Amino acid sequence: MKEFIIIGNKAVTTPFSLNDLPGAAGRMDILCRCVNASLFLSHDLRRDVRVYLVLKGGAQPMLIRFEGAAVRYLSPDERSAASLIKKALEKGAQGFWTESMPGVSIRKGDLCDLLDELNRKITYLREDGIDIRVKQLDTDPLFILGDHLGLTDDEEKIIEAHEHEIINVGPLSLHADHCIILLHNEMDRIEKRI
Amino acid sequence: MKEFIIIGNKAVTTPFSLNDLPGAAGRMDILCRCVNASLFLSHDLRRDVRVYLVLKGGAQPMLIRFEGAAVRYLSPDERSAASLIKKALEKGAQGFWTESMPGVSIRKGDLCDLLDELNRKITYLREDGIDIRVKQLDTDPLFILGDHLGLTDDEEKIIEAHEHEIINVGPLSLHADHCIILLHNEMDRIEKRI
Repeated sequence: MKEFIIIGNKAVTTPFSLNDLPGAAGRMDILCRCVNASLFLSHDLRRDVRVYLVLKGGAQPMLIRFEGAAVRYLSPDERSAASLIKKALEKGAQGFWTESMPGVSIRKGDLCDLLDELNRKITYLREDGIDIRVKQLDTDPLFILGDHLGLTDDEEKIIEAHEHEIINVGPLSLHADHCIILLHNEMDRIEKRI
Repeated sequence: MKEFIIIGNKAVTTPFSLNDLPGAAGRMDILCRCVNASLFLSHDLRRDVRVYLVLKGGAQPMLIRFEGAAVRYLSPDERSAASLIKKALEKGAQGFWTESMPGVSIRKGDLCDLLDELNRKITYLREDGIDIRVKQLDTDPLFILGDHLGLTDDEEKIIEAHEHEIINVGPLSLHADHCIILLHNEMDRIEKRI
């Protein structure tokens, strides 16, 4: 199973307008593009992928999970992913996962809670990491990526307290969703041996 | 200069609602994501890129051009690119390029007109093409990508009448915007020699 965690530093934790994802919803557009990049193939979904969004733009952080094997009613456009995130926030969260729509679940929690739950090695993307063409990727990894603000020092410390490696996808600094595309391609090539 | 042409088979040629890019606007969401993938770096733009959109969902096909070196008022979200496309369609097109907003221009025309104007070698993405890690990319190419419907037989014939090569980005079939990310990464690596 390939898992992606994306940190939304300003992403709101209450229902929001679909007409202003970058502004009032706290750069929710970034998280929506990461859902797309993680899950979509041409005319198909990547069923071996789970995406976790960490919404930190409210007093109580929230976690949203998309499961490629179960998700329905998801189209590639940002507004479609946003609509499913909004429905999850409307449902209201508990301290455990509850499904708001097929393949989409919500719980209260932050990055620390999520990493404790998943309890596995972390692959963290950062510009000073090892190039993915030098250090071969695992094909069932747990990746962590930041939004436009990256990760906080406290979050980096949380990662460092777990088994982890730090990687890099290329010579230029890219958006999180663009990095996900490059990670998938590298894993696709390893799995298909090309 | 890196140039990308994206074919929008159903993309409308009259002003459209920003609230239904996939439906009423004829999968305009795909073209918007391609603009993002072509032009955006993290906290920067790729200034050595031009993107051409071929809007075929009306009686008179339209061409829209985004220039990385000149574009302003463009954010990474789909709605932002869509808003600039809509403004171009509102301006009204001639048989030559007219600028509707900084770095965004429109003209009447189809793929054939555009290729005649650009008059250069074409790199066409197709699943049976040569892997970009086998056949090294030019670093100032003209790429052509299709939307969810691909290219028509007539469009393939137009390409074949020009100097061209056919390439492929990996083992799975991907969305056009995801392919653009992989192309850029490959060219970034060639340019930075890593």
